[in-house]
This record gives sequence, C-alpha cells and structure tokens, in this order.
Amino acid sequence: MVAPGTAIAVDAMGGDHAPREVVRGAIRAAGEQPGIPLILAGDEVRIKAELAEAGWNGSNIEIAPAKCVIEMSDSPVEGLRRKRGSSIEVATRLVKEKRAFSVVSAGNTGACVAASTLFLGVLPQVKKAGIAVVLSTGDSKVVVIDVGANVYSKPEHLIQYGIMANLYAQSILEVSEPKIGLLNVGEEDEKGNALAKETFALFQKTKLNFIGNIEGNEVFGGRCDVVVCDGFIGNVVLKTAEGICEKLVRLFHRALHEAMAALPNGVQLGGSIRTAMTSLERNLDYAEYGGAPLLGVAGGTIIAHGRSDARAIHNAIRVARRMGEIDLNSRITDELCTLST
Amino acid sequence: MVAPGTAIAVDAMGGDHAPREVVRGAIRAAGEQPGIPLILAGDEVRIKAELAEAGWNGSNIEIAPAKCVIEMSDSPVEGLRRKRGSSIEVATRLVKEKRAFSVVSAGNTGACVAASTLFLGVLPQVKKAGIAVVLSTGDSKVVVIDVGANVYSKPEHLIQYGIMANLYAQSILEVSEPKIGLLNVGEEDEKGNALAKETFALFQKTKLNFIGNIEGNEVFGGRCDVVVCDGFIGNVVLKTAEGICEKLVRLFHRALHEAMAALPNGVQLGGSIRTAMTSLERNLDYAEYGGAPLLGVAGGTIIAHGRSDARAIHNAIRVARRMGEIDLNSRITDELCTLST
Repeated sequence: MVAPGTAIAVDAMGGDHAPREVVRGAIRAAGEQPGIPLILAGDEVRIKAELAEAGWNGSNIEIAPAKCVIEMSDSPVEGLRRKRGSSIEVATRLVKEKRAFSVVSAGNTGACVAASTLFLGVLPQVKKAGIAVVLSTGDSKVVVIDVGANVYSKPEHLIQYGIMANLYAQSILEVSEPKIGLLNVGEEDEKGNALAKETFALFQKTKLNFIGNIEGNEVFGGRCDVVVCDGFIGNVVLKTAEGICEKLVRLFHRALHEAMAALPNGVQLGGSIRTAMTSLERNLDYAEYGGAPLLGVAGGTIIAHGRSDARAIHNAIRVARRMGEIDLNSRITDELCTLST
Repeated sequence: MVAPGTAIAVDAMGGDHAPREVVRGAIRAAGEQPGIPLILAGDEVRIKAELAEAGWNGSNIEIAPAKCVIEMSDSPVEGLRRKRGSSIEVATRLVKEKRAFSVVSAGNTGACVAASTLFLGVLPQVKKAGIAVVLSTGDSKVVVIDVGANVYSKPEHLIQYGIMANLYAQSILEVSEPKIGLLNVGEEDEKGNALAKETFALFQKTKLNFIGNIEGNEVFGGRCDVVVCDGFIGNVVLKTAEGICEKLVRLFHRALHEAMAALPNGVQLGGSIRTAMTSLERNLDYAEYGGAPLLGVAGGTIIAHGRSDARAIHNAIRVARRMGEIDLNSRITDELCTLST
C-alpha cells in the first residue's frame, strides 16, 4: 500500500499509444526511483498484461482500476460527465484523495484540464490555471504559457501566468531572473488588441523582469525565458511550430539522402552529420521535455503529448517528481498572497 | 505622363532596404513589362540617384515626390497623422486619384493598412480588409488570411475573409474549389473560443468548400488551401513560422558544414545537396511569393515584407499586376453583393 501523498498517479489509458507506451514509460520511471510509487489508472487486465509483457517485477507500481477512457475526440466536459470513472478521473481523484501528489496524462488535454479544475480546484488567489510548456530549438529554451487551458484570457490571468511561469522557469531553466515577454503583433508598447494592451500595462507594474512585447519570430529566438499569451494563441503557436519542425526535418532528411546517394562509392557522410541530425531532432522533440505542467491547480497535473512514447511518459513523470521536489505550488501561493496583501 | 489607372504606385521608401532595393526591384519589373508604368513615391533625389546608379534608362518609371517616411517603429495611425505627405500616403493617394490601380509597399504594415483604409476605403459590402499571404513549405501552398490587418475580428469578418481568399486562391493557386479551414485549437466542431465557434457555424451555412477546423500543425500540412483566422493570431503564426524556419535552416547548415568538413580530402558533397538546400530555402522564402494583398480595399494594396530585397519587390509588383489582370475586386464585390441580396 502506497503511503499517503508520496505517489504519482498516471493515466495509463491516455494517449495515442496507451496503455503500452504509458506502462513502459512508467516502468522506466519506477525502476529509476524505486522510492516513488506509481499508481496506474486504467483497464486492470490490459495494464497487467503490459506489465507482464515488459517483464516488470518491481514493487512500486500499483493499479487503480478505471472502467473507461475519455477519447481524444470526446468533448472534455461532456466526456467527464458521461464517462464516469474514466482513467483520467480516477487518476486525478487519487491526487484529490491525497494518495498521490501529482497526476500525469497523455490523454485528452481538455479533459485533463477539466478534471484537474473540477476535482482539484485552483490554488488560493489563482484565477485560472495555465499550461506551461518548455520549448527549445537549438541552444535556447523558453517556457510558453498558456498553450491551451484557457481560451478566454483576461489581463489578470495573463499576469498570473507570468508570475507562475517566472517561478517555474527559475526552477526548471535555472535562470535567476527570467525575462518575461508578452506575445504580441509588434514590439512597440501600444501594439495589439485590448487584451495585449491592458496586460502590457499591468506587467509594467509588477516586479517581474518584464521585457515587453515580443513577436512570433522571437518565441524561439532566445530573447526571453518566458512567453505569456492567451491559451488559444499559445496552442496555435505550439502546434504550428510542431508542424513546421516535422515538415522541415522531413525535407532535410530527403535532401540529405539525395546527397548521400550522390557520394562516390565507399565514401560515407561520417558520424558528424548523424550526430548533428540527432541533436537537431532532439532539440525539436517534445518527448525530450516530458510533460507540461498545468500551473495553478491545487495538486500537480502534468500533461504529456498525445503521441507520447515510453520515453516521453518517463520524462513527464520526471517533471511531476521535480515539481513535487521544488514544491512549486507553495511558492506560487506565497507569491500571489504577498502580491494581494 | 502616365495614362489614368494604368500604373502601379510603389512606396520607394518603405522597408529595411529602401530605397535601394525597392528601386532595383522596380527596375526589374519595369524592364519585364515596359507597358506598365511604375510611379515611385519618395525622396526624389535619392530615387534618382538609385535609378542612375542602377543604369536605368527606360521610360516607364516616374517619381512622385514625398517628403517623409513612416518608419517601422512609428505608430501607424499616429504616423499618418503626424507625417503628412509620407511616401506611403503619396503612393496610396495615387490609387485614390486613379493615376495608379495598385500600391506596393514594404514599409510599416500598419501604416499601409491604415492608409489604404483611410484613403481608398473598403469595397461595397466589405466590413474589414484582411491581409492574405501565400505560404509554402515543401510541396504545398496555402493562403492565410488575416495576418495582421484587423486584431478585433468578428465572425462576419472571418466569413468575408474566407469568401475573399477563396476567390484569391482560385486565381493564384489555380484550385477550382479551394478547401477552406478555420484555424482553431482542435478539430472537433465545438472547439475554441466564442469567435471560433460562431464563425464555424456561419461557415457551414456558406457555399464555400469549408472543411472545418484545422489546428496549427496543419497550416503547412496541405489539408486546406485557405486558412482563416483573426489578424492577431495570423500575425503570430506567420512570424512564428518565419522564426522557426530561419532557425532550422541555420541549424541544418551548421550540421551540413560539419559533415562536409569530415569528408575525406577531395570528396565533395556534390551538387544534389546544394540543389536540395536551395530548393528548401526557396520554399521558405517570403521573397519568392512577393507581396501579400490587402483583400477588400477599394483599389489594390500589396504589402511586401519589411526585409524585401529587389527580388521580393519585383515579385510584389508582379502580384499587384496579376491582381489587376484578374480584376479580383469586381469578383469580390459581385460575390458579396450576391450573398447579401
């Protein structure tokens, strides 16, 4: 039996490759840190079969049976209401019941956000939770918040996203004073729509290291450590970036293959191009960064990519662990309470 | 003297490399089609010097003197008000006065939109003009509208963007029934914010080939020919794509250089990789597609990229010419009038 609050709950049925890859990712994480129990929520028979097939014989994985799954195509709130006892609900309730301190899911993002909001609620002073994702191309890393939890942002939501992501970036990117940028359609102070203008003015009044507006082309440019935006825009930016990266890497590969085919017999392109390509792909690889925390919920919720493989799930569980270690929630609460008094 | 309405007005001072690259681009276009006069608006002395330096001795370039320039950093509306007689104002007024049928500018986009809206107005039935840009990565092309003219879109604006871009895609991409997608945070019908949901419902009532919601990762995926979105989001998507492409091409170049350096003495990577890289870069190159039309204005307004070189300006002038040839405005007016009766 898992001691209260020491475990991480995992939605074993969420994601395109569930339960197989989720179970395998959990096994990796469980083997890495035997002291942290994992509770896999989902179809007991299938999870047991996957554990057996992967040769699991450890003691820190438990199963919490769940009778159904909210599919990617289900409406989040509707799905939660109709499909009682789904894997995401069961996993999230483990956090609510203090049996786990965090929940990891690669399933329906909307359902995951809705379950966390519904069952866990937000931290004191937090108005809306936001999904913070760490992105990287090349040598720079940036936290983008929100990438889809909230598509009706108000200026005060965006400010809180900035405050929460500032603390997150301090711990995760290890930057002492993260540079915060507001995603906008121009750099000048007065640019943008009403939301951007009001948020800009509010950011200037905070103690954050606010560097002002940044444009889309600067998201990956290393100018700031945190990019704040509405969830609709963040989601579109994230997915556009993903689509473009995949397409370009495919085009690069084709170009490279043609080049290699044209080399004289016996001549190889050598290891360096493979190393370079691997590092390039890794830089663009969501799995490398694991899951994205839903900052602001009372508990720990880590959202993994729907296409997560075992490595991505493993990394998402690592993020969950790290979030617990640094006790980010207390820091968020302290910061927001200080600001509001 | 130019015959009424047969010329294209060019803002010779707009853009990072103006007037030099603008004048050189104009010379190329003027040489290509001696029958179409170009009127360059701007600093007469500097334009004359550039024309002389480039060895221009043709007869179809005129100069319309303008005494100032609205800089990239100027607030658009404020800039237009304060800097009377700017090159963008003079160039746009040439269209208003029917001396030209179209205006091309690589200057401050907001000022260009404001000048067109102010001096030319919108076509009958059109509520808001939108910037339509043709994007391509690899083998697919897509028209994205709006990429920044209007950051306060209403559902009826987005529907009109769809209708206008449908006609534009028919002529420019030569697709008989362009597939229209609405940029959203999920594919399902009920996804998104209020704007997206209302627009979705309205699109379903049109006769357009509306394929529903598309996500960011599909913008460059070839699933549709036209992507409709609010100007704030379109601008961010466009610039994010631009930033990522530049960054990836740089990373890939570096990888390639390392690989080449590691090849045995005397062995070359061969022409194919260079051809592939060139074609890749061309695919990602805004200059290749010339300018983006501001659809819906009463006149022709082509917005070129701020970093336009001579080739980009040349292509933007070509787009202006093509827009005149196909008489897109009459088709837009016909279509919207039919719909409203």
